Amino acid sequence: MTANTNAPETSDLADDVLPQGFRFAGVKAGIKASGKPDVSLIVTDRPAVAAGVYTTNQIVAAPVVLCRSRTPTSSFRGVVINSGNANACTGDQGDQDAARMTQIVADHVGCRADDVLVMSTGVIGHQLPMEKVAAGTVDAYGKLAAGAEAFSAAATAIMTTDAFRKVQWGNVTIGKNTYKIAAMAKGAGMISPNMATMLSVVITDAPLDENTCQFALKMAADESFNRVSVDGHTSTNDTLLLISSGEGESLSGDDLSTFQQTLNDVCIRLAKLLVADGEGCTHVLAIEVSGAASDTDATLIAKTIAASPLVKCAITGGDPNWGRIVSAAGYAGPTINPKQTSLKICGTLIYENGTPLPFDAKALSQAMKASSEVLIELAVGKTGASAKYWASDLTNDYVNFNSEYTT
Amino acid sequence: MTANTNAPETSDLADDVLPQGFRFAGVKAGIKASGKPDVSLIVTDRPAVAAGVYTTNQIVAAPVVLCRSRTPTSSFRGVVINSGNANACTGDQGDQDAARMTQIVADHVGCRADDVLVMSTGVIGHQLPMEKVAAGTVDAYGKLAAGAEAFSAAATAIMTTDAFRKVQWGNVTIGKNTYKIAAMAKGAGMISPNMATMLSVVITDAPLDENTCQFALKMAADESFNRVSVDGHTSTNDTLLLISSGEGESLSGDDLSTFQQTLNDVCIRLAKLLVADGEGCTHVLAIEVSGAASDTDATLIAKTIAASPLVKCAITGGDPNWGRIVSAAGYAGPTINPKQTSLKICGTLIYENGTPLPFDAKALSQAMKASSEVLIELAVGKTGASAKYWASDLTNDYVNFNSEYTT
Repeated sequence: MTANTNAPETSDLADDVLPQGFRFAGVKAGIKASGKPDVSLIVTDRPAVAAGVYTTNQIVAAPVVLCRSRTPTSSFRGVVINSGNANACTGDQGDQDAARMTQIVADHVGCRADDVLVMSTGVIGHQLPMEKVAAGTVDAYGKLAAGAEAFSAAATAIMTTDAFRKVQWGNVTIGKNTYKIAAMAKGAGMISPNMATMLSVVITDAPLDENTCQFALKMAADESFNRVSVDGHTSTNDTLLLISSGEGESLSGDDLSTFQQTLNDVCIRLAKLLVADGEGCTHVLAIEVSGAASDTDATLIAKTIAASPLVKCAITGGDPNWGRIVSAAGYAGPTINPKQTSLKICGTLIYENGTPLPFDAKALSQAMKASSEVLIELAVGKTGASAKYWASDLTNDYVNFNSEYTT
Repeated sequence: MTANTNAPETSDLADDVLPQGFRFAGVKAGIKASGKPDVSLIVTDRPAVAAGVYTTNQIVAAPVVLCRSRTPTSSFRGVVINSGNANACTGDQGDQDAARMTQIVADHVGCRADDVLVMSTGVIGHQLPMEKVAAGTVDAYGKLAAGAEAFSAAATAIMTTDAFRKVQWGNVTIGKNTYKIAAMAKGAGMISPNMATMLSVVITDAPLDENTCQFALKMAADESFNRVSVDGHTSTNDTLLLISSGEGESLSGDDLSTFQQTLNDVCIRLAKLLVADGEGCTHVLAIEVSGAASDTDATLIAKTIAASPLVKCAITGGDPNWGRIVSAAGYAGPTINPKQTSLKICGTLIYENGTPLPFDAKALSQAMKASSEVLIELAVGKTGASAKYWASDLTNDYVNFNSEYTT
């Protein structure tokens, strides 16, 4: 087998990276005051397999409730997505509006509303402007097309505070077949995953049955979207879908493992784009924790470091104030071994087995400032358990942006 | 009984609010580059009872390790405190330095080193400048005095990033005796308590035996310092001491309850001063959660709201973006009832039983901006369980301050 993926830094999407069997549209419906695109639609030419993973927040948006009840499925036909309004904390009216969005799509596609999914993203606690949403959905249906341009339009219309469009893709050859995976995501704030974070749709033409699709997506989420943090705030709307238009026998065994590897890779690159575009982000923290009692413990320690405002601010300023990192590990919860705790920042060993080492603070500060991704390697013992995590730093721009959002 | 306490907003300390049997000093030892006071000493005239509660961080500073092994005690004679250096993550050398600080005090007081406690606060991971610390300790011993001026000097020399000195006091009359409680604290960042936060010394002349002293202090910490958060980062050095110079039979029963009430009150007011002085703080969030399954659940929900950067930034900007508060409750962990979730900000009901209510966003925003303490009342069900929590907001000043600390 071979697996090819695009570099994370490029997003030059071409028609031939997209799996067959999908059509896309993104339109302006006037939901956003800015007048930017705000309704996306993705439909499949035939019934397809779809799986989803969703926010673990107990306060869930109406679209999440609906999608949870409709996935996994092997009769998927479409998903409609609006940005500019999250349809969260909107009571019974919100539930009715989410259902109506899927009904409108179903009426045009000629399928059951149950075969259509829905996502919303934006401000919480406002009722959807349903006339605009409905008109936008109909408009999007009329503009459905295959190809990169339409895919990009759909990826653009799901953005909210995102500074750039987030798409990734890859392909995997199994036997004589080459399968494609393409994915889009949005998200720049309220990002601290638990299951999935933000909105993301991954499409493929690899054949997957319902259970396999669900399993593969959960695996990929745990390695990617569940390992990034912007602000430690788990959203009410997080939804990640995997849609397969593939026909024939479902992948399994080694073939599935090969597919999984590429799926994980696409999702990891997409998740890292979320962090890089974290509100106000100037540096990505790449946190690698080793030596914990288990991988789960290592993940929790890495997540705690990722969430510390003091650590984030130190990275913002290129400040090798490493005590903040070590002390965050100490309050994370899992048992650590302080006398076997060691730390490297940008490859420089500065704390070894509980004792500080002399280092050139000025040189390290310059290295940190110059790195768009600051590598933090923390050992908290001598075991083989480890975890990776990615986070954004904390800047004035984050504060300014989030101090003036709804008003 | 009667209990009198000073108003939180005043700190006009007079000699007669201080319990008898204590002497204090605060001096400049040159540990801080700024040249500000950095060594404090508190001694008792006779052996006294002392109890401590400490950080739950697994990465603990050398002074915390030492104090833990020496409290509770009924032979306490003194505590030496340096600011400007936390003596944390300093390996064996740090342990030796902490022990030596107590030995120097013991040599002058004429007691065992075991009867002396020690605290340090400041940057993590640098060895103490022991010549300066030793000379400062000797200097402080020579300047010991009773009275408000000396108490203030001691409270000043423990400050690091604090914008103002934090002292509180109260008295309680039991039978024909009036007992006094006076307390000092420092802390403005790396504040998210678990047991105690920051450094604080509470002194009293109420008679307490070792176990009673320890119990009363733990109770007070749980109601005060364990309910405030600046940045969610639990320090390596948190230490809270209660020292009693009282003689005769220990308080117990109703008398102890009366004393406890005043002790709690003094500690709550002191803890709220920490939040009000939180790095860059412009508004205090006063969070009241009700209707959870237990008080513990309510506390965890309140703490999660207090730690959300999105909630903090909304308060900074006077933005009634209430979905951030409700969604934080949803990811806190404890089970909540979304259909019985209601929210008031500054007394205005804006979300009731899972449904948003119309409200005057502009008027509420103005009320939030005008309130130095923004009241957030969240119900997550109909039970009687509840909790209070206090937190600082998140501002550019916090980010700027913490982006440039060691370098």
